[in-house]
Amino acid sequence: MDIIKVKANSRTAAVAGAIAGVIREHKHAEVQAIGAGAVNQAVKAMVLATGYLKEEGVYIVAVPEFVDVEIDGKVRTAIKLVIDPK
Amino acid sequence: MDIIKVKANSRTAAVAGAIAGVIREHKHAEVQAIGAGAVNQAVKAMVLATGYLKEEGVYIVAVPEFVDVEIDGKVRTAIKLVIDPK
Repeated sequence: MDIIKVKANSRTAAVAGAIAGVIREHKHAEVQAIGAGAVNQAVKAMVLATGYLKEEGVYIVAVPEFVDVEIDGKVRTAIKLVIDPK
Repeated sequence: MDIIKVKANSRTAAVAGAIAGVIREHKHAEVQAIGAGAVNQAVKAMVLATGYLKEEGVYIVAVPEFVDVEIDGKVRTAIKLVIDPK
């Protein structure tokens, strides 16, 4: 299962569709974002995905975590939203 | 139960303490943030609160929602994190 990586300029509807698709297939999704703009897009996308999946009787919840990721040789702290059905 | 309101310049440790305290008392907490910087602080605070509460055997999860709030006569869209024990 691939981690869904979100940027500050990611479209929320596209990310929401990805979250819903991964939840449907794997019953588990992980969304990674670095920086305030990206974290905000990730959370907004989860609101939309929650709406999509609710229509199918699936209620998702998130547990956020810190994760260290290496980008261009530098370690940065990302937020990972671990999303599962309730 | 009061909603915990987070700003972009809120200290994450203070917000985390508030989340943990409200969860201990009410088994339910709501955190409201407007704007990317505030949402980021809210999510980071929840990571810290998750760590505090895990030591007490309490595992929290979040469902984010959009809420319209009126500030100085203008309607703005906030993110509300609805937090409950798993």
